[in-house]
Amino acid sequence: MSDGGQVTNPAPTIKRRGLMLVLSSPSGAGKTTISRALLEQDSNIFMSVSATTRPKRPGEVDGKDYIFVGEDEFQSMIDRGELLEHARVFGHMYGTPRAKVLDALNRGIDVLFDIDWQGTQQLGNDGSTEADLVTVFILPPNSKELENRLHRRARDPEEVVRHRMEKAADEMSHYREYSYIIINDDIDESVGEVQSILRAERLRRERQLGLHEFVQGLHDGA
Amino acid sequence: MSDGGQVTNPAPTIKRRGLMLVLSSPSGAGKTTISRALLEQDSNIFMSVSATTRPKRPGEVDGKDYIFVGEDEFQSMIDRGELLEHARVFGHMYGTPRAKVLDALNRGIDVLFDIDWQGTQQLGNDGSTEADLVTVFILPPNSKELENRLHRRARDPEEVVRHRMEKAADEMSHYREYSYIIINDDIDESVGEVQSILRAERLRRERQLGLHEFVQGLHDGA
Repeated sequence: MSDGGQVTNPAPTIKRRGLMLVLSSPSGAGKTTISRALLEQDSNIFMSVSATTRPKRPGEVDGKDYIFVGEDEFQSMIDRGELLEHARVFGHMYGTPRAKVLDALNRGIDVLFDIDWQGTQQLGNDGSTEADLVTVFILPPNSKELENRLHRRARDPEEVVRHRMEKAADEMSHYREYSYIIINDDIDESVGEVQSILRAERLRRERQLGLHEFVQGLHDGA
Repeated sequence: MSDGGQVTNPAPTIKRRGLMLVLSSPSGAGKTTISRALLEQDSNIFMSVSATTRPKRPGEVDGKDYIFVGEDEFQSMIDRGELLEHARVFGHMYGTPRAKVLDALNRGIDVLFDIDWQGTQQLGNDGSTEADLVTVFILPPNSKELENRLHRRARDPEEVVRHRMEKAADEMSHYREYSYIIINDDIDESVGEVQSILRAERLRRERQLGLHEFVQGLHDGA
């Protein structure tokens, strides 16, 4: 650009390790909407697909919404150490297959997790991924709003709603175990907040793998 | 809104503790431009004004650019514990007055610091502010660019430039002590990155002081 001289040291692309972005919240706090918006607007993150023993619901696609497996197969996955975390929720097993996540992290791709506090705790205890975790807890703006949203799914039987409210209270009691807290008062604002967290966490020194060589190059050139 | 019912629990404003955003970089990496843009676009952060013993330059305003003090007065500030950090750079003393910073943090206002690695280390060692620190290191995109920028200040004598380049190399060798690393290849991109870091760090659980009561309220209402 300047001096008509040639550019001797163009800026290299710094290799980056991917991160695991965990969004947890009580059901009805808007997490699904936020996740969807995030995935639409950011091409370097994909949603981790859980394995589950719960029956497929109408419209769900195997391998996309969930990996649907039987109890025996799920137990085998646990036994072979193929799951990063697993838990029983409402009588069904849910778990995160390990291989696809680790492969993404190594290739600098981020993975989004829509899991509860139990799953988050297990991810945090797994030595292979602990440092890759970025945990976000989403809270509803007030209890009235939470209650409204839980009732809005009209097809669910009353007992399921009650279960869900108990689970919501249980889930909320674990907010302290998360690094970032978002109060979802406005959905666009909340999406922007999650995006900022993602952008910031990508800039963390430990995730930028080629920094040592890069700074070395600056020294040598200067 | 819905059901014609009254809103029983409006979303409270969560009280927040301010944070200390430290930007360090070798001279010529674009830090000043980034700081200025950040301050213009965000009304909840102000620049910490350092005390210094270096002579006032033409155009500089006492109390705005620096607090200009004599050597004796500076030493008294150290002795009275009034400085969060201080260091000698190019023969002059520089330091950060403590009271104004702590007052801002307590009122939920963020403070921007344009200090070097020595000052950053001292802030990190001060028990009263360690948890409030968010440290960002800005690197130039390549050594050619760095060199150009260091020479661009034509009024500086060659010896000062040489000093500055040595200091740049010294400063860069400390990048590992920072949490976030930004490679300033594009100024708008870099400003956006600092803004994302600021927005994300404001959402950290430990900085949102009213969360316990807020979640309690959600439980009681649900």
